[in-house]
Amino acid sequence: MSVTAAILIIGNEILSGRTQDVNTQFIAERLSARGIKLREVRVVPDDEAAVVAAVRALASAYTYVFTTGGIGPTHDDITAACMAKAFDAKLEINAEAKALMQAYYDAKGAEMTEGRLRMARIPQGAALIENSVSAAPGFKIKNVYVMAGIPDIMQAMFLSLEPELAKGKPVLSRTVGGRLLESEIADALGDIQDRYPDVEIGSYPAMGRANPHVNIVLRSTDGEKLAAATELVIAMAKKFDKS
Amino acid sequence: MSVTAAILIIGNEILSGRTQDVNTQFIAERLSARGIKLREVRVVPDDEAAVVAAVRALASAYTYVFTTGGIGPTHDDITAACMAKAFDAKLEINAEAKALMQAYYDAKGAEMTEGRLRMARIPQGAALIENSVSAAPGFKIKNVYVMAGIPDIMQAMFLSLEPELAKGKPVLSRTVGGRLLESEIADALGDIQDRYPDVEIGSYPAMGRANPHVNIVLRSTDGEKLAAATELVIAMAKKFDKS
Repeated sequence: MSVTAAILIIGNEILSGRTQDVNTQFIAERLSARGIKLREVRVVPDDEAAVVAAVRALASAYTYVFTTGGIGPTHDDITAACMAKAFDAKLEINAEAKALMQAYYDAKGAEMTEGRLRMARIPQGAALIENSVSAAPGFKIKNVYVMAGIPDIMQAMFLSLEPELAKGKPVLSRTVGGRLLESEIADALGDIQDRYPDVEIGSYPAMGRANPHVNIVLRSTDGEKLAAATELVIAMAKKFDKS
Repeated sequence: MSVTAAILIIGNEILSGRTQDVNTQFIAERLSARGIKLREVRVVPDDEAAVVAAVRALASAYTYVFTTGGIGPTHDDITAACMAKAFDAKLEINAEAKALMQAYYDAKGAEMTEGRLRMARIPQGAALIENSVSAAPGFKIKNVYVMAGIPDIMQAMFLSLEPELAKGKPVLSRTVGGRLLESEIADALGDIQDRYPDVEIGSYPAMGRANPHVNIVLRSTDGEKLAAATELVIAMAKKFDKS
């Protein structure tokens, strides 16, 4: 069975260009390593209608959805309320989340303010995701994992939930690089792709016109076919290499 | 009238985690500066059904769609064919595109190979987008601008098409930073947001637990309201600052 996933990035700061998203690449790499196919990423603003529509569409289309952003204490953090709405669940103070946060703030000699308590509001029936960095947890509702947007917290949350994800057939990959021009190798590479439909072959030029370089990436769950296709690509690359 | 936009990133290499997308941030910043609201970003694989469905959905929902990726010469470059399919247009060798490329290759003493000619296949009725880097053009079909995925080429294409985009009301922004804790300022910041609904106020913590820092970003098309809300945020930040 193919295990699939989507990422939903929630945040005006990505759409305004203020912040460079780096969460996608982290999650994408971890999923690839686990054999889970990341099939789609969406970025939407901090807007209830947009978040609710996107999470419903993605949750019904893929095995897992991973969301990042919008679970902090400020007024613009609306993700928990959106998830409650999307799945018709009640949003309530989660006793376990509150206790975790209380212990964390007690240890720091800090108060549980109203703003902090907001981070314990979690849809009824959701399971918590540990936040080893700053206590306030993420959560899982249906097949959706809801995580923080700050990269170090998101990464800690992902690593804690990762063991429970189903494993897909691992995707093996090989990369063949060379001083190549895409437009010169296109025909030969297309022929190799036609011969090995079970191997996904991608061609990625690195610019720098004085010194052309192309990386050809081969990916497959079938090690033998991957090896055979890679041999053909290596031979082809040697023929066209400009070094 | 509100001018809106979406970005559609086409490429397995982003979804596998191999490549960090940087095109979104470039386009997002340029659109912000022009007063165009970027409302959504999607990343989809090099898969015809996925690309066609996504571009149709986005083109009908927003003023403009900008796509990146998949217009090179190799077999995995399927974007032009997808656009033709999405908009029921014929895919054909575009004479103007072919002439541009022929002149470029002639000047380099290079041949027009079959692979290169593939880059001149463009949906009937589309207008070309200049590629000042490597000749092979992008194109515009309906309200969709189709650009290369390689950042320097994409940027050159975007800058050449930018003057024809409608301008929205410019969004002004101010940023107030300080040694703040989000959970401490949340209530006061929410009150300011309630007083100024026309100002979009976002709170962005920068991690580094030893040295907490929050940037509060205020954005609005109304300069006076922006200034008034910013004053309140500055006063609030002074009160809570830990410096």
